[in-house]
Order: sequence, then structure tokens, then C-alpha cells
Amino acid sequence: MYVSLSTLRIPCDQAPELVAAFRRRAGQVERHDGFVDLQVWQSDRDPGHLVMVSRWRDRECFKAYMKSEDHRVSHGRIDADLRQAIKLESLEHMHTYEVVAE
Amino acid sequence: MYVSLSTLRIPCDQAPELVAAFRRRAGQVERHDGFVDLQVWQSDRDPGHLVMVSRWRDRECFKAYMKSEDHRVSHGRIDADLRQAIKLESLEHMHTYEVVAE
Repeated sequence: MYVSLSTLRIPCDQAPELVAAFRRRAGQVERHDGFVDLQVWQSDRDPGHLVMVSRWRDRECFKAYMKSEDHRVSHGRIDADLRQAIKLESLEHMHTYEVVAE
Repeated sequence: MYVSLSTLRIPCDQAPELVAAFRRRAGQVERHDGFVDLQVWQSDRDPGHLVMVSRWRDRECFKAYMKSEDHRVSHGRIDADLRQAIKLESLEHMHTYEVVAE
């Protein structure tokens, strides 16, 4: 199994808006081959620190999604002001992993 | 749902030993109330960067486990040299989250 983890930082007062945006996401990633699941985590000590985690059958499935039109569209749906707030604070950081033990 | 994420850094040549240790873990966490699942992730760009993620029904269940004898014993089972290697490189960092969207 393959994992993509993106950390996001946003001003605390805009965090509820970002969480709401994730909750009404289009959900088109679900139809992509090899998609396992996706969760958004919010730090319980720092509400402005969020993590988006998606899991995939393997790296190839993840890469195929990242190159897809659905991925481009999913980013395009985020409100411009919100996108700007995410960018201003410290950008999105992505790490990828193989699941090696359970 | 509540998430605990610990990042570990270890010299690359000792990473396989650490992964093997996770694979033969005692598995006593499974019997604790509110435990959902646990995975160990290894960076595909940097094998010396590992992440241990456990998920729980809520924060209270996680805290109860952290105070338990099983948690203490699980750390005690790690080989002393390996534990030292983890410590030398940069310590274990823990972050905790609430799952806010899926």
C-alpha cells in the first residue's frame, strides 16, 4: 500500500472553512484505479495545522491520479481566497510512503 | 476518530532492522478499548524516515493506552542498540489529530 501525506498550514480562523471545503469535496478521486481511502486530520493542539492523507494500492495508481484531469479540477474547486490563505502561511508539503508494517 | 502520528529518523542501514521490529511487534495494542488500526510507513525517497500511525475511537482511548503497562512494555521490547540509533538521529516526534473529513 502507498500513502501520500500533505501538510497544510492556514490561519486558525480560516480552518473551519478549509475543513468544510474538504467535507464537500467532489469525491472524484474514489473512482480512480487503486484508490483506497482519504482522510483529513486536524491537529488537536493547533487547529491551523491540517494533514490530508490518501492511501493507494501502489505508487503507480497514485501517480496516474496526480496526472489526471480529476486532480487538476479538485484543486480548481477550492475557493481562491482560501487557496491564497493556504499559500501565504507556508505552502503545502507532500511526503509519500510505502506501508511496511501493520 | 483520533490519530497519533510519530515520525522517526534512523540511519538508512538500520531501517530494515526497525521495520522488522515493527513486523514482529507483540500486538498487545489491539486489545485496548477504542483501538482502530496501526500502520508503519517508510518514505520512498528516504528509507531512514519512518512514520508510525495509530488510529483510535477518541482521544480518551489513546490516552488510556499511553498510560498502560502494554505501552511501556512495547517500548521495552525494542532492541537497545536500535533504540539508541533512533534517539541519536533526531528523536521521536509525535503529533495528534482529530479526523475531520473523509
